[in-house]
Formats: sequence, structure tokens, C-alpha cells
Amino acid sequence: MNNNKRAVDLYAVILAGGIGSRFWPLSRATTPKQLLSVVDDESLLKGTIKRLSPLIPPEKVHVVTNADQAELIRLHLCYEEGEPLCPEYIVEPMGRNTAPAIGLAAIRLAEINPEAIMAVLPADHIIGEGEKFRAHLIKASKLAEKGHLVTFGIVPTTPETGYGYIKAGDKLAGEETSASHVERFVEKPDKQRAESYLSDGGYYWNSGIFLWKAKRILEEIKLHMPLTFQRLMEIGDGEDITGSYEGMEPISIDKGILEKAEDVVMIPADFAWSDMGSWNSFGEILGPDRSGNIIKGRVVDLGSSDSVILGCDRVVATIGLKDMILVDTPDATLVCPKDRAQDVKAVVEALKEKGFTEHAEHRTARRPWGYYTVLESGPGYKIKKIVVKPGQRLSLQLHHKRSEHWVVLKGRAKVRRGDEVRIVSLNESIDIPIGVKHRLDNPDDTPLEVIEVQSGGYLEEDDIVRFDDDFQREIT
Amino acid sequence: MNNNKRAVDLYAVILAGGIGSRFWPLSRATTPKQLLSVVDDESLLKGTIKRLSPLIPPEKVHVVTNADQAELIRLHLCYEEGEPLCPEYIVEPMGRNTAPAIGLAAIRLAEINPEAIMAVLPADHIIGEGEKFRAHLIKASKLAEKGHLVTFGIVPTTPETGYGYIKAGDKLAGEETSASHVERFVEKPDKQRAESYLSDGGYYWNSGIFLWKAKRILEEIKLHMPLTFQRLMEIGDGEDITGSYEGMEPISIDKGILEKAEDVVMIPADFAWSDMGSWNSFGEILGPDRSGNIIKGRVVDLGSSDSVILGCDRVVATIGLKDMILVDTPDATLVCPKDRAQDVKAVVEALKEKGFTEHAEHRTARRPWGYYTVLESGPGYKIKKIVVKPGQRLSLQLHHKRSEHWVVLKGRAKVRRGDEVRIVSLNESIDIPIGVKHRLDNPDDTPLEVIEVQSGGYLEEDDIVRFDDDFQREIT
Repeated sequence: MNNNKRAVDLYAVILAGGIGSRFWPLSRATTPKQLLSVVDDESLLKGTIKRLSPLIPPEKVHVVTNADQAELIRLHLCYEEGEPLCPEYIVEPMGRNTAPAIGLAAIRLAEINPEAIMAVLPADHIIGEGEKFRAHLIKASKLAEKGHLVTFGIVPTTPETGYGYIKAGDKLAGEETSASHVERFVEKPDKQRAESYLSDGGYYWNSGIFLWKAKRILEEIKLHMPLTFQRLMEIGDGEDITGSYEGMEPISIDKGILEKAEDVVMIPADFAWSDMGSWNSFGEILGPDRSGNIIKGRVVDLGSSDSVILGCDRVVATIGLKDMILVDTPDATLVCPKDRAQDVKAVVEALKEKGFTEHAEHRTARRPWGYYTVLESGPGYKIKKIVVKPGQRLSLQLHHKRSEHWVVLKGRAKVRRGDEVRIVSLNESIDIPIGVKHRLDNPDDTPLEVIEVQSGGYLEEDDIVRFDDDFQREIT
Repeated sequence: MNNNKRAVDLYAVILAGGIGSRFWPLSRATTPKQLLSVVDDESLLKGTIKRLSPLIPPEKVHVVTNADQAELIRLHLCYEEGEPLCPEYIVEPMGRNTAPAIGLAAIRLAEINPEAIMAVLPADHIIGEGEKFRAHLIKASKLAEKGHLVTFGIVPTTPETGYGYIKAGDKLAGEETSASHVERFVEKPDKQRAESYLSDGGYYWNSGIFLWKAKRILEEIKLHMPLTFQRLMEIGDGEDITGSYEGMEPISIDKGILEKAEDVVMIPADFAWSDMGSWNSFGEILGPDRSGNIIKGRVVDLGSSDSVILGCDRVVATIGLKDMILVDTPDATLVCPKDRAQDVKAVVEALKEKGFTEHAEHRTARRPWGYYTVLESGPGYKIKKIVVKPGQRLSLQLHHKRSEHWVVLKGRAKVRRGDEVRIVSLNESIDIPIGVKHRLDNPDDTPLEVIEVQSGGYLEEDDIVRFDDDFQREIT
């Protein structure tokens, strides 16, 4: 196979169904980790897609996600800052871990191209060296074409206990690459074991990045997960996906297939990589200062060391912290020692149990037309600041249970209210009564800022009837 | 002297000039520590005045404060929750530590009553047992009447390094009280020394509470601080206080007088006492839970111990903290180990240097008519939520540099705008143009809540011209 042919058969499958709750309070159900801009201005998901594109263009990328996140991701990729990205979507009716997700993607790809090779990638990893990374993908795709199941093993640098490990076996015969057979997969080890892996050598971090032919992985699923295979076939035959999916065992591809399959090979990968598994990963990605701290925001620190201190617009003052993590957001603060970073997931569960909405929502919500921030709410009212990007407009909508009052803080608003259209200028205001169709439009080339005072007995986002929308969101 | 005579001659001098910056982010320049409600709903200052009142009524209490705080304190005592308290005020033009403040009070009291006995008390201590405390004051006033300078020594319970100590000497001859002569005053010791003080016995914490005749302390000032005495006399003779005060040496009464004076006696005090010197004092006052934590607010904690975690309306999540302090307020967060609690003062200095206003102001500001909270501000605008107590009204005022737009969230507003007076009801709004006299009035017996959108080039609180005010604040 020449390079051209390989490029034709090569597809990417990005697994983007998780929330990444270890990154709370930045990650939330409505702002999952893959949509966060952690390192630069670009979200982890956009970075993942763009990193592939010289080799695999976005139209050959299939994003596997679930019903909750699909619309969030579509709006994010199509309308938020930067060039629009338009991959394909595979929407799971519910999460069933990675094996069913990969199986579902394999069926789709095999339909499109029986020779399809799929590169499976998590949506929320950070990979520093794009070109080196793509060279690894090309190397792997050659092996995948021959029928191997290919994994990438990251050369370990620390005795990390947060990753699974791959024990490399014999070199792959007759290959000029550095690929090896996989001897076995090892679950996340304790500290002592991790240290011996590091000193013994031959162990690699399991990156969660895989390459194989769609047909080959389906064969393996048929062999090792026959019930899942059967349900995948039903879906392929056009049966109701929800019913079929519900019955699948939630299991990872590692446990379900790779630990059992015969022909798994590993390519050692030496590109800069982080799975951004917890707040500790921040230290690997962003360079610490001379005291070992990573400090962002309006922070006043006296003598802390080896700590991650992330503020926002609020003031954060720290004294003498050592190996601590502090993440401050406008509505929630997290403080914990670095060695408890994995337990942030449990905090999110505790928040859910207590009925605190801060596990799910941020005060500021991004929308394709801009964003809004809830400044204050109480019984019967909610105050929002709304920022509309130049030339953008909200949907034509009405609310059954609330009236709205808008005051223009910056720019000019073009407001449709019932049959009337008028310009509302700086410091002017307008009332939108309950049940009246309206639309907020920024006709100018500078941002429009509006204070919205909502009044009514029910003030949730789902009290909205859309009649027209620039962003293909659901209309009535 | 019988009890009646003593009660006639007994006055209190409350030193209320400090900010208590070790209690940042709760204490700020505009909300000094003595105005905070730390233990119950009552501020430390109100508690201090009310604790005296069965023995010394408010009209015999002289609050010594400075120009910055005098108006804050007056409005707090007269108009905020609870019964109004109307003590006398002695306003220093600037802070010069305790010796000049006490000297100034002594001159005033000696003018009022040549036989005046003054009980000197910090405004921001917590004393638990009022009746026992007042019994101590009576005991002390008997000694003061005989010409002694009386101090209270607190029986120490821990090797505290945050207090000065008093070494008690021989028992006072011929007295039936437990009073002793003071052998010497000791500065804040290190840990080892504090431990030996505790095991040796005979050492007491210097409470900062003193009793003496006004005439007697003036004699001592004349003897040990002749320049200060001379300037105090000038003030007594009606000279400009600012000029005289500026030249005084800023020195504490302990260092300036008590360490040098001959006739200082000490009464051991066993009433419950805390100087609330730092966040660590919280543990002495509020009972910790079984893990040794003091937790308030919307906190989710996993396994912390011996920590103080004070949240507000925001969510705070903590994991595995040990001996830590975390104080979260709507606009600022503090995190430090307990043994660094004294350094919070340095944080406040650092905030000042950086030009962060959070050292001085809270987002919510109390006013005699209610309070307001700044929800958001940006170039050219500021959004406030204003809450007006039932039957209260703001001053009749105008602004030269901003227009205001009010939306009623709760209740009804009676608004005067120019010559017009109208009722603005729920969800209705009204504009107040620049330069137009206006007044916001809550005519009903439920709180009025209003969103105010300010627009203009200058949006600080000092752009206000008052024409009439219910609270005797400065008018034009």
C-alpha cells in the first residue's frame, strides 16, 4: 500500500463522551473537559481534531459522543471562536464505556469503507508535537493494514500511579519499526509497583490511543464479546439503537478486547503527551515557576511551593501552601493536597447528592452567538449579563413563564418584539412581556452587552420556544 | 466609696480604631473587625458596649476612633439591626497607637468629671461571661479609686505566642482581692518560652483591658511621655487637634507607660476571653466538630481535620485538609496553614500594593437604610442590587457623572425624580438621568429589592450630592 492509499482508508474516531469530573470546578456536565481550553485558547477537542488534519481531515473524523453532549459539541465546533470544524458524529443513546463506542464506530466505518483503518483517540488528551504524532500514526497504520491491533505506549518518565501500563514483549519480527508484541496489560499500579516498572524498563503507559482496521476490531468483538457483537449487528441492520445499546455490557476496550486478543502490538511513543487525568497533570503541561508553583489569575501568594493555584477574576490569597491544589471559579472553589487530586471525582458526586447545581453548570454559559453570565438569582427573578458577538443574533423565541427587561450596557441592540423592530441604544431599556415573540440582534461590528432582568415563577433555560435560529438548534 | 458613687464615677473608653486585618477577607477597611458579627448576630463592638451596660450605660461609654471609621461606627450603632446604641465619640484625626488615644480620652473624661475612673477596653474582643466580667470591673474600680493602675491578666490555658504576658509579683497588701503587683510585662514570646511561662506559673496573658483614674493616667503620661502630655494639654486648651496629634509619638500604653510606671497591679481574670487576634481564635470560640473542624457555609468536605473552613453562598470543596484555614467570600478567598494565620496581615499589605480594592471593600456594603451588592462592573457601567429595609429611604441626592436605571425585583418603590413622585411596581423600571435630584423610598412593610444599572464615565460612591438624609449623613 502506498501512502495515498493509506490516507484514503484512514479515519479517526474521537471518544468524546466523558465529563472529566476530576477537573471540577472547571469541568462540569455542561462544560465537559474536552471543551475546556486548558493550555492555549483552543479546547482539547478542537486541538485533537486539528492535530490530525494534515493526515486525516475533519470530514473523516467521527466524534463518538452521547445525546447529552452531542449538541454542545456541535455548537462548540461550528460556532465558537476560531475556524468552524465539521466532523461526523456518532451519537450513543447512553454511555457504555469504550468497547461498545468503538464497536459502533467500527460498524459505521466498515459501511463507509470496508477497508477502513480507524485511529481511536480520546478527546481530552494533550499531545505536544503534532508532526511526530502524525508520523507515529502513519507507522501504526502500516501495521494496522496488516491486521495487527496497534496501541501506543508512552515512555514513562515518573512512577505514575494514575495510568495503566503495557508490558512490551518481543520485537515484531521482520518490521523495521520499533514495534513490539504486547506481553500484557497492567492495571493502575500502587506506588511501589510503579517504581519497579520504571526501574525494570519495558513498561509503558497505556495512552488510550489505538489503531486497527474496522473489520478486524469487529472480528475481535465477535470473538470476545459475542453479545455485544450481536447487538451491534442489530444496529447495523437498522434496529432501534437505544434498545440495542441499553443491553450492552459497559466495559472498556482494554478489558473487553485487548487483554484477551492475540495480536496486539505496541509502538513506543515519545511525543509529549498528557492524559490530563487530574489537576496534577497541570504541572506536566504548564511550566512551574522557581518555587515549583503554577499560579494563574489575581493571586497574592506568600511563600507557597510546588502548588497549583488557579484563580479567576476574584482575588485568591495563599500563604505557605505545599503540594496543594487550589482552583477558584466564580461560583466554586476546590482545595486539596496534590496526592488527593483523584478524589475530586468524589467531590462531584457529593455535590450531586447535596443537590448543588455547581456540579453541572457554570455561571457563565457559552452560546454560539456569544455568552451569558448569571449575576444573581432569587425567588421570582434572575439577572443575566448577555454578550452578543458582532453581527450575531439569538433565536427568534418566546417564553411562556417569564418576562424580560433589557438594558443596553454597550453597543446597540436591534430588538424584535412582536411585530415591531427597534434599535435600543446605550443606557436604554425595553420590556419583553410573557408570551411575546422576540429576538435580540447585534447589528454592529462591536460586541453588544445587555443586562437582562427576568421575572416570573419559572426561570429555567428550558422555558423557550424557538421559531427561527441561525445555529440549527431545535425549533418548534 | 459606696457602690453608687463608684457607678457615678465609672466610665468606659472603647478603643475602636483598628481594622483587624488578620481577619481579612472578612475584615476590610470599610468593614473593620469590630463591626463584624463573628459569634452571633451582634457585632463585636455592639457586644462590647452591651456587655458593659448594666454597670456602665452607653451614654457613659466613649468610643475612641479615627476619622475614617467614625461615621461607619455611628451608622452601625444607630441604624443597623437591633436596638440603637448611642455612645459618645472621641475622634482621632489619625491613628497614633493606644497611648495618645487613651491620653485624649483621659483629658475628655477629666473635664467631664475630675474623679472619673476609666475602664479601657478593646472594641474587638470576645468575652463570654458578662456578669463575671462586670464583677471584675467593680473589683478593679475599687483599686483604681485608690490610685492604682489596674490591668487584667488572663489565666493562660495554652502556650500562646500571639499575646504579650504579665508576670505577677507580690500580692497586694491589705487587699481582700486576689490582685498582685505587676513584676514585669513580657513581649510576645517564642513557643519554647511560652511553654515555660505556662509550666512555671505566675504568668498571665495581657488582656489589653485596663482601669484607672483619668487624672492618674495623665500624671503618668506627664512623667513618662512629657512631649505627648504637652500636646494633650494643648488639645485640652482648645488648640487644633490635628496639628497637636500629628506630632505625637505612636506608641502603645503598655510600652509608653505600663512598663515604666511604679504602681501597676493585676487582677487575674478567669472569664471566657479571646482577643480574636487571628483566624485561629475561631477554634477557641466556636466548638469544632468531631474531626476538629469548624465548617460553615455550602461546604463539601472529604476527610479534612483540625481545619477552619468558612464558606459563603459559593460552593467550597475541600479534600484532606489538615490544620488549614480557608475563608471564602464572594470576591476573595484565603487559604493558609493555621501556623501562618498571623501573616494574613501581610497579605492585606500585598493586596494594597497590587492595587486590588479587595483589601478595602466588600462587594456588599451595609447602609443605614439596608445594603447594596455590586454584581458586576466594567468600563462605563456598574450593576448593583439594592435592598431597602421596610419603611426606609435613601437620601435625596443627585449624581453629576452617572445616570441610573432601576428595575424593581421585589416590593414597590416610591421614587422621587425631579419634582415628580411615582410608585414603581414589580418588574417596572425608571430612569434617573444625570444631574436629576432623586430619592428611592420603600413605603411598604416588606423589603424592597431593586436592580440598579449605573452608566457614566465615573461610577464611584463619592459622586453624590445629598440634600436631605434620614441618617444625619453629610449634606450639601
